[in-house]
Amino acid sequence: MNFVRFPNFDQAERLLARPAADHSARRDQVAAMLAAVRVEGDAAVRRFAAQFDGGAPASLAVSQAEIEAAETLLSPALRDAIRQAHANITAFHALQREAELSLETMPGVLCWRRSVPIDRVGLYIPGGTAPLFSTVLMLGVPAQLAGCAEVVLCTPPQPGGNGPHPAVLFAAHCCGIQKVFQIGGVQAIGTMAYGTETVPKVWKIFGPGNPWVTVAKQLVSLDGTAIDLPAGPSEVAVLADATADPRFVAADLLSQAEHGVDSQVLLVTDDEALLEAVRQEVASQVTALPRRTLAEAALANSTALLVHDLETGMAWINAYAPEHLLLHLADPEKWADQVRNAGSVFLGGHTPESAGDYASGTNHTLPTSGYARAYAGVSLDSFVKKITFQHITPEGLRRLGPTIVEMARAEGLEAHARAVEVRM
Amino acid sequence: MNFVRFPNFDQAERLLARPAADHSARRDQVAAMLAAVRVEGDAAVRRFAAQFDGGAPASLAVSQAEIEAAETLLSPALRDAIRQAHANITAFHALQREAELSLETMPGVLCWRRSVPIDRVGLYIPGGTAPLFSTVLMLGVPAQLAGCAEVVLCTPPQPGGNGPHPAVLFAAHCCGIQKVFQIGGVQAIGTMAYGTETVPKVWKIFGPGNPWVTVAKQLVSLDGTAIDLPAGPSEVAVLADATADPRFVAADLLSQAEHGVDSQVLLVTDDEALLEAVRQEVASQVTALPRRTLAEAALANSTALLVHDLETGMAWINAYAPEHLLLHLADPEKWADQVRNAGSVFLGGHTPESAGDYASGTNHTLPTSGYARAYAGVSLDSFVKKITFQHITPEGLRRLGPTIVEMARAEGLEAHARAVEVRM
Repeated sequence: MNFVRFPNFDQAERLLARPAADHSARRDQVAAMLAAVRVEGDAAVRRFAAQFDGGAPASLAVSQAEIEAAETLLSPALRDAIRQAHANITAFHALQREAELSLETMPGVLCWRRSVPIDRVGLYIPGGTAPLFSTVLMLGVPAQLAGCAEVVLCTPPQPGGNGPHPAVLFAAHCCGIQKVFQIGGVQAIGTMAYGTETVPKVWKIFGPGNPWVTVAKQLVSLDGTAIDLPAGPSEVAVLADATADPRFVAADLLSQAEHGVDSQVLLVTDDEALLEAVRQEVASQVTALPRRTLAEAALANSTALLVHDLETGMAWINAYAPEHLLLHLADPEKWADQVRNAGSVFLGGHTPESAGDYASGTNHTLPTSGYARAYAGVSLDSFVKKITFQHITPEGLRRLGPTIVEMARAEGLEAHARAVEVRM
Repeated sequence: MNFVRFPNFDQAERLLARPAADHSARRDQVAAMLAAVRVEGDAAVRRFAAQFDGGAPASLAVSQAEIEAAETLLSPALRDAIRQAHANITAFHALQREAELSLETMPGVLCWRRSVPIDRVGLYIPGGTAPLFSTVLMLGVPAQLAGCAEVVLCTPPQPGGNGPHPAVLFAAHCCGIQKVFQIGGVQAIGTMAYGTETVPKVWKIFGPGNPWVTVAKQLVSLDGTAIDLPAGPSEVAVLADATADPRFVAADLLSQAEHGVDSQVLLVTDDEALLEAVRQEVASQVTALPRRTLAEAALANSTALLVHDLETGMAWINAYAPEHLLLHLADPEKWADQVRNAGSVFLGGHTPESAGDYASGTNHTLPTSGYARAYAGVSLDSFVKKITFQHITPEGLRRLGPTIVEMARAEGLEAHARAVEVRM
């Protein structure tokens, strides 16, 4: 880690910089692949699977029998863990249901707002080094609670042609998902954006992915399909004081760093002794990790800041706008109130980030790369539209009409004024 | 209008097609302009204003004195109208404030969600043929209610160098906006996305614009700045039965059509006599409109569908996913419950779209081009992030820990498991 003592804010841009992610070189190839999926459908999907993934499965669709049988392939402990996580995530996201909001803004002018599910949504679950069944829960649970009529899940088959990982299928089953396709990468995004013979077209696509998938999501978002969030490498910031336990802080930093070489870790503290103790703990704990090489590479790009006081520390945190923020502080509630920019915040020494990654109930699909300044993580809101309605009585229009007419004429929109006057 | 009797759903794609908006030809030029603003700042803004808008004003910033003086340049009737609209929009958007949501998902595992304002937002208000002061209210009111610390407004000066239209400045003043810049077009989007010597950088940009502005918003959204909505030409759909008043329906269709030649109008009815009566009314009312040429051109591209029953009609409406939906029906409440895809819905014969465009309280910044399938219009939600928090007690972690450990190991993320175990 790059240690900086008492940094000045004019260094902020450099010290808080994320690894640059310029995907423009990929854009043309991804656009060509998406166009092929749009025109040729499943044939293009199979061709790209053969070209990039070592072959396409016989059936792109995973059968309902396979989805239901997945449960039997998991250990009882893992089944129970997935069910517990599903229950907690469901409980917290169910809170987010919004009752209909209604107000008579003037007598006879009734306005209201109602949440209506997005009918067709697509979830992308990457394959790669780990089966991300936790992400199935994080996207599938709010889709289920929102009442989305059609939920499509695309995920690459495992190497060796054995279909998707059974934990992915079991998590999908827990969320009531019935349409699972073993399709990965750019072609998966293309099938969901445009529809093919096999895969239904959806209105919004969710889920993480590698840079190719990220570019594909960007491109379809310019072309009529909504997406959840701009994606970037995962990151954590820790604000710690002298009361923090260096073993816990080190473990939290490492649980972020093991994600990949482009993961970001930022430690901010007002206590130099803690900083030194964390450094030693990190060096010690990292040696025992199976993903040690990844973690060490990520840590090499990461930064620790020693600041004069926690106010200054919190200013650095808000300037960074971390995806995850851990408050290893004596009074974390007080400092939580000062958070302006973060995806999800973890308070106190016994709240590891991995709790929110898996099972406490909050969502782990969160804004990275500083997007936490303007974006929230995925929630029930992400799976609904909030549609407004209004009903005006003749008396209400008599009251409100002159205001409308005056404004419409001042904007030069005569027909807008007449649409009121014809009724009066 | 293109009249179609009893259309079959396999014609839906053709009958409901929007005018194609392919902006790709503009992309390179817009990208070059944005890059120039990023590198050169105000100098590039002045150069583009000279090149495209006939010259740059002496001062890009509008002074606080000018903003405050604008009120005196408006008629008392227009001032009152803007104040009434501001009050109604404020009342309806204040309803959308979300109380903190909190739940102990398991004993000792407390999760909550809190709305936090986006600190820096930018509003773009086009110039062109009409001063869109109503859009200032639609964006400025929720920004004000959300508590955004810095609200920047860019709008082109009026022709002749007299600064922005006083109604725009007065509406801004009503919303407490203090930073107004007379900058238009692509360069306005660039200044707010990147910041210049004069204009502060913001995290999210709102507002309508011509295709150049739309492309600029798309490009900055790929580059770290959030935007409100993908933009497209405005549109209305009307579902009407035999009880509808053809004069009102015709007036509503025309108030949409006058927006511009690319505006879209769709009429769906189960009553042929009404359809014929509306056609005659449209032909009669259009002759009296100052924007008659625009309205006639828009109507030439528009469609009326005669259907067997209202169920079928509503299916066509949901397939179209209109920005505005007007229900000229005997029982509009019943049919409002069947709406799946729409931006904003207007019930009954005395609820013209222009009520929502200006003053009833709902927002007029709405999803066009079918985006209503997945997007909601602008609301208070658009100006906040909903940040999640969690605080777990040692006892809570003892309960939840085994679930986290089991899932983390199954995903191959050992450090995530150890971050729990080190605490147990």
